[in-house]
Amino acid sequence: MDDDFFLDQRVAIVGLGLMGGSLALALRGYCPALIGVDRNPETLALAEEKRVVDLATNDLSAALDRADLVVLAAPVRANLALLAEISQLHSSSLMLLDMSSTKSAVVTAMNRLPERFSALGGHPMCGKETSGLAHADGKLYWDAPFVLTETKRTTPELRAAAETMVAIIGGQTLWLDAATHDRWAAEVSHLPYLVSAALAGSASAESASLVSSGFLGASRLAASDVTMMLDILVTNRDPVLAALEGFQRSLDALRQALHRDDEPALRAVLSAARDNHARLVHRPDADSLVELGPSDDH
Amino acid sequence: MDDDFFLDQRVAIVGLGLMGGSLALALRGYCPALIGVDRNPETLALAEEKRVVDLATNDLSAALDRADLVVLAAPVRANLALLAEISQLHSSSLMLLDMSSTKSAVVTAMNRLPERFSALGGHPMCGKETSGLAHADGKLYWDAPFVLTETKRTTPELRAAAETMVAIIGGQTLWLDAATHDRWAAEVSHLPYLVSAALAGSASAESASLVSSGFLGASRLAASDVTMMLDILVTNRDPVLAALEGFQRSLDALRQALHRDDEPALRAVLSAARDNHARLVHRPDADSLVELGPSDDH
Repeated sequence: MDDDFFLDQRVAIVGLGLMGGSLALALRGYCPALIGVDRNPETLALAEEKRVVDLATNDLSAALDRADLVVLAAPVRANLALLAEISQLHSSSLMLLDMSSTKSAVVTAMNRLPERFSALGGHPMCGKETSGLAHADGKLYWDAPFVLTETKRTTPELRAAAETMVAIIGGQTLWLDAATHDRWAAEVSHLPYLVSAALAGSASAESASLVSSGFLGASRLAASDVTMMLDILVTNRDPVLAALEGFQRSLDALRQALHRDDEPALRAVLSAARDNHARLVHRPDADSLVELGPSDDH
Repeated sequence: MDDDFFLDQRVAIVGLGLMGGSLALALRGYCPALIGVDRNPETLALAEEKRVVDLATNDLSAALDRADLVVLAAPVRANLALLAEISQLHSSSLMLLDMSSTKSAVVTAMNRLPERFSALGGHPMCGKETSGLAHADGKLYWDAPFVLTETKRTTPELRAAAETMVAIIGGQTLWLDAATHDRWAAEVSHLPYLVSAALAGSASAESASLVSSGFLGASRLAASDVTMMLDILVTNRDPVLAALEGFQRSLDALRQALHRDDEPALRAVLSAARDNHARLVHRPDADSLVELGPSDDH
């Protein structure tokens, strides 16, 4: 069991934002070397100052030379560009894991890598609506599902290393194929973001004086980083549009029942939604996710 | 100023649920007598056990006889029924304040009360998604807007008593007419509830393994008490349908931009939503409402 709590590989994390920085904090002391790569000089300075990694650099090629396992922790399309760049830059073998929020495009790109690379898709189901290294948190991954997605380039060694890494940072490994991941993530993550954004976008300035925790909670995902979310939406367009259709049907049922003053129908739909929410909240592993405290404003 | 922190009136609270019970806890020691009225024997037993009020009773008529100010703290339509019942039961003068979530129907009913009654509409913009006296919290009203709505039966004495009560419980008085309140509350409270319910209702069982704090936050209002929310929706139908139209326009703009892969349009709508959310969050009095911690799951 002790092996589960030490990663034999030297790790380079590319992208020291909220996710990459939190991963670095969670891995500190659990692998022989930890290298952070970022283009932003302020991020690199902060990483050095806080000793987030053993070495913070903007030199991707040098970092690849010093690493056994490279974790891509940028937004989806930046990770896709990094995969292309790495396959050009690096002529020897290397293990690659990404943490992009959508998996189909990444897995397709990984499948096309030269055979000297081993590659695995990953997506930790956690985050904050804040971004950047300054908000990184070594406990961010605790108890969160960490999806791993096999590719044609996945080796047993990389599978094992990824599972060990997820165990070290406190996440829960969940093996899923890319299409299933993307469909489910569209429903429980990308759709709620769009809905929160539409709520935040449609609130009139004048009604702001009545805003309370209920509205802020329901619209909070609207504060997410727009570039990151745009990457997600564009690389997961069809599953997101399908999830949006399901939501629209639920909302239409509510609107129509209200419009025709059909209280039994309204009660039935609202009660079913309440029951479904209770089921989701009371999953055995969801307790840690439920925020407490005042939360509505009726 | 000391007068602001003592209510001269004996207070009866009708309905010892989350809102009425929290009001009682917040008023304890700040008025000459505190009476709680509820039909549920378990609620009355709990109120006595926890000394939430000086007297807990199911006898509305007796409570009215012992009170100067009666606060109606049941769901909207129950409060409407109580207004009719009280005007029958009680033959002498009395001050009435309600805490219903919608105001137009209540104000209309209050306007029709016999002249021996003085009456004022009220709506504290706070709550929890839990209900019942067991979840009552004396700090529930702290820093929350407390809307007061004049009626044809509002006297200067009742105005002053209500403002004193709001000050004692830590709320912020906001005088609004019924139509304005109902329109704004539809936007920032009733619409988010419907949207959360549609989100919770449309989540498939299979995607539940990826649910994390972002989804739970966005759908949390779906856990609200259905009977209370049904009262709200039915008594505020037209403003809710209008708010829903505004939301639908925002959502349609997002869907159409995504559907035609129009990234500049998508970025513009998402950025505007993020900016609007930031404005709402950073209202000077909203800081206490913002929940911290992990909150998205992209």
